[in-house]
Amino acid sequence: MDETKPTSPAAPLTLRRVAIDTYRENVAYLHRDCAVYRAEGFQALSKVEICANGARILAVLNVVDDASIVDEHQLGLSEQAFEQLRLAEGSPIQIDHAEPPRSMDAVRRKMAGERLSAEDFRAIAFEITDHRYSKMEMAAFLVASAQAGLDRDEVLHLTRAMVESGERLDWQEDLVADKHCIGGIPGNRTSMLVVPIVAAHGMLIPKTSSRAITSPAGTADTMEVLAEVNLTPEALHELVRHQRGCLAWGGTARLAPADDVLISVERPLGIDAPGQMVASILAKKVAAGATHLLIDIPVGPTAKVRHMREALQLRKLFEYVGDSLGLHLEVIITDGRQPIGRGIGPVLETRDVMQVLENDPQAPADLRQKSLRLAGRVLEFDPDVRGGQGYDIARDILDSGRALAKMNALVAAQGPRRERYALGEITYEINAPQTGVVTGIDNFLLARIARMAGAPMDKGAGVDLLKKLGEAVKQGEPLYRVHAQFNADFKFARAFNEEHGSGYRIGTADEVPKLYVEF
Amino acid sequence: MDETKPTSPAAPLTLRRVAIDTYRENVAYLHRDCAVYRAEGFQALSKVEICANGARILAVLNVVDDASIVDEHQLGLSEQAFEQLRLAEGSPIQIDHAEPPRSMDAVRRKMAGERLSAEDFRAIAFEITDHRYSKMEMAAFLVASAQAGLDRDEVLHLTRAMVESGERLDWQEDLVADKHCIGGIPGNRTSMLVVPIVAAHGMLIPKTSSRAITSPAGTADTMEVLAEVNLTPEALHELVRHQRGCLAWGGTARLAPADDVLISVERPLGIDAPGQMVASILAKKVAAGATHLLIDIPVGPTAKVRHMREALQLRKLFEYVGDSLGLHLEVIITDGRQPIGRGIGPVLETRDVMQVLENDPQAPADLRQKSLRLAGRVLEFDPDVRGGQGYDIARDILDSGRALAKMNALVAAQGPRRERYALGEITYEINAPQTGVVTGIDNFLLARIARMAGAPMDKGAGVDLLKKLGEAVKQGEPLYRVHAQFNADFKFARAFNEEHGSGYRIGTADEVPKLYVEF
Repeated sequence: MDETKPTSPAAPLTLRRVAIDTYRENVAYLHRDCAVYRAEGFQALSKVEICANGARILAVLNVVDDASIVDEHQLGLSEQAFEQLRLAEGSPIQIDHAEPPRSMDAVRRKMAGERLSAEDFRAIAFEITDHRYSKMEMAAFLVASAQAGLDRDEVLHLTRAMVESGERLDWQEDLVADKHCIGGIPGNRTSMLVVPIVAAHGMLIPKTSSRAITSPAGTADTMEVLAEVNLTPEALHELVRHQRGCLAWGGTARLAPADDVLISVERPLGIDAPGQMVASILAKKVAAGATHLLIDIPVGPTAKVRHMREALQLRKLFEYVGDSLGLHLEVIITDGRQPIGRGIGPVLETRDVMQVLENDPQAPADLRQKSLRLAGRVLEFDPDVRGGQGYDIARDILDSGRALAKMNALVAAQGPRRERYALGEITYEINAPQTGVVTGIDNFLLARIARMAGAPMDKGAGVDLLKKLGEAVKQGEPLYRVHAQFNADFKFARAFNEEHGSGYRIGTADEVPKLYVEF
Repeated sequence: MDETKPTSPAAPLTLRRVAIDTYRENVAYLHRDCAVYRAEGFQALSKVEICANGARILAVLNVVDDASIVDEHQLGLSEQAFEQLRLAEGSPIQIDHAEPPRSMDAVRRKMAGERLSAEDFRAIAFEITDHRYSKMEMAAFLVASAQAGLDRDEVLHLTRAMVESGERLDWQEDLVADKHCIGGIPGNRTSMLVVPIVAAHGMLIPKTSSRAITSPAGTADTMEVLAEVNLTPEALHELVRHQRGCLAWGGTARLAPADDVLISVERPLGIDAPGQMVASILAKKVAAGATHLLIDIPVGPTAKVRHMREALQLRKLFEYVGDSLGLHLEVIITDGRQPIGRGIGPVLETRDVMQVLENDPQAPADLRQKSLRLAGRVLEFDPDVRGGQGYDIARDILDSGRALAKMNALVAAQGPRRERYALGEITYEINAPQTGVVTGIDNFLLARIARMAGAPMDKGAGVDLLKKLGEAVKQGEPLYRVHAQFNADFKFARAFNEEHGSGYRIGTADEVPKLYVEF
């Protein structure tokens, strides 16, 4: 602190690009001797607003003591922040204190257990999209909502607010189909089979996907092994018009962008509350223009949903919000006792999907069966398909090779990958400690190992399951193989395995948990 | 992503100081072409661990594209991070992925509404102290605990864990007194009067204070107007031995450091939950070696505690945790209907305190009365003081000038300020809209205005109350004056006033709310 009289600095600052990559966080650099810094009482790490020519961004302030980075007449911006402003170096620029987000008052009311209004959620989604929230503030919103819980009208308000935070596609057709699984089951890549089958039938299914939040691979992460998934809204439209479907990431399309920002906090914190999940899924689907939606809720002892009671509650919530938004929504409850298919991680899951599409006799039967049943239910959205006939139509499309042809067409249209991702070459195997039958596979633990091994960031990392539920194993026989691309990840995964065990349970045939769902 | 084979980089990196001030957040800078960066699969903004010579710190990674900041053989550290490592530039240094804090599992269980164990709280406090938590993760812990609530045993565990996170003073005396107000009442600077009075009596009162969390001034912020408050543990000990008291900030003394880190997140989020409050207060007091503690809970319509029922619950919680920790703890419930004294903000509150110490006829009577009563209760901890005599002893000490002499001695010993902080020169007044009697003053709103005006960061900023509860006012007469040091803050405060009103209610004498507390 000093006693300098407050002054309005006369000379404006000029913009400089600082060649530091700070990813999703904008950083502004001011020299400690800069007149504005001294006059306006800024502090390192405080949030500032930067304006020039009508453009405006928020950034975190770092104070510089080295004039070769920025001098006292310059304002530096990190690479991504500089790009957002779209101005040349040397442009005159203004900096001011950023006001805290106004809707933090609503977040505080939520912390106190209050119910929030539609207006509150709108303000929160808007300010999040506008990057007015720090990660800490978003964490407060997410944890407060997850814990106090959102009632079904609040979930509806949040969903609407997230839809309104971005663009909304209109396909100008009466039937725009989509499907979504709530997640928690590793290897569950049914979308990459359902979309080609449904699109091959001619039904419009412009599926947009999220990246993984807490799982070792999302559909977008996996499809990226084969093709470009970051499409512009224009490219996406063009693709869907021609192909009747797509397998693209929703984020770049500016659909429900508030959701993407929130996911960047949910992911490291491992938050996955029912209300936020329903809002996140339905906001993306409504923004993407879906009219008919199939939701898959897997149930099992290590799935996200562990009891039928809980699955039914979640189904009611999906139905309430979906109906209120004018969606035609169906929920099916599926077998979530173990991972689907054999691979866990983008490259391995792509292998499984391609085996099913190619009618390879080695293809994992559970992935094929589940995908056909889901595709069948989606096809029955078509008024011309009789109830109960969907499955047979789906199987015909798959067996005839029309689904494979459609996948190849989608890959070609989205943009095939030039380089192939290799499977991680650093491996170890986990062996059966005794002879018996596999009576349990922990979804959560296998997913964690695949993540520790580097998935989904490293496409070739993951877990390859060599034995599934009910299969007989001999002592010393391998249960699964872990693949990593980098030494550090290999060590992490291995240490995790040593600490937490294999995730497999070996016992007798009668100990295999019973199947208590539709299929 | 590329297909480079994983390699263990042969040449170690060398340390470089990057002249960027990132305050409480350690930042590490790696060049994009650095072999380690490529081989180990780091990402911008990911958390890394940096090791050299047994020392170890955590930092957030920024990726640099300019070799003049760091080249591909260097690892750069921001100024504070560099200092923590205590190594020369050019030292060889290692970087690795930082594991996420293990105790986040406990935080997730708390989010799910579970009760945490003593071991959980110990792990959380330890990892927070070790800087393993990001701000986002701390926000998750705080919000989850605030919302699910902590039961009284959890509060006890958290308190113990925070005490164990740092050093603990032992004064080797049977009676070590302290006092603390839970806050929420602007201008309530009684500690700066109670400590000189009690220390002048000869009772040991090594008061350590926090800085403001959500208020416009804490005792540490205000005492800093007169003297140094950042003392080393050695200096603090020396001072207390000679003076029988002190008015220092607890943070630098490494007392319950986990609490200081948490406060840096609570403050911007405005979290102030009962369990965390009790744990924070008692951990600091126990770590500071207190054996006898007086807690002041103000109650009023705009105080933190609004109803007597709530005050009694809080008192029980203080008593339970205090007794379990072996503290002799007394709670008194006081008048929290309006700010105490006239000034709000460090410089203004210092003026009020000095007027009381100097027996100035202009001194605010409420501040004097409350301080004497609190000091009286503390003095009664002395077995030689009869119950009921404390107040008279306190008044004698104040009126005789012995309290002022003690304050001067404390200032001289802690280190008097060389430069004086001036009162903010940019001012505006808020005037009475009608003639009548002041029937309400909103503590919360007045505190917000003082904060908007720049307090406590700008010592001279704040609000000077010209009328208090029950006083008659004429239309147009000023109710209070707002002082700011910087233009931006002045604009903020004024805009806030325009949006939210004055915070004063004018009515008739019979509308003044009744006093329903001890004094």
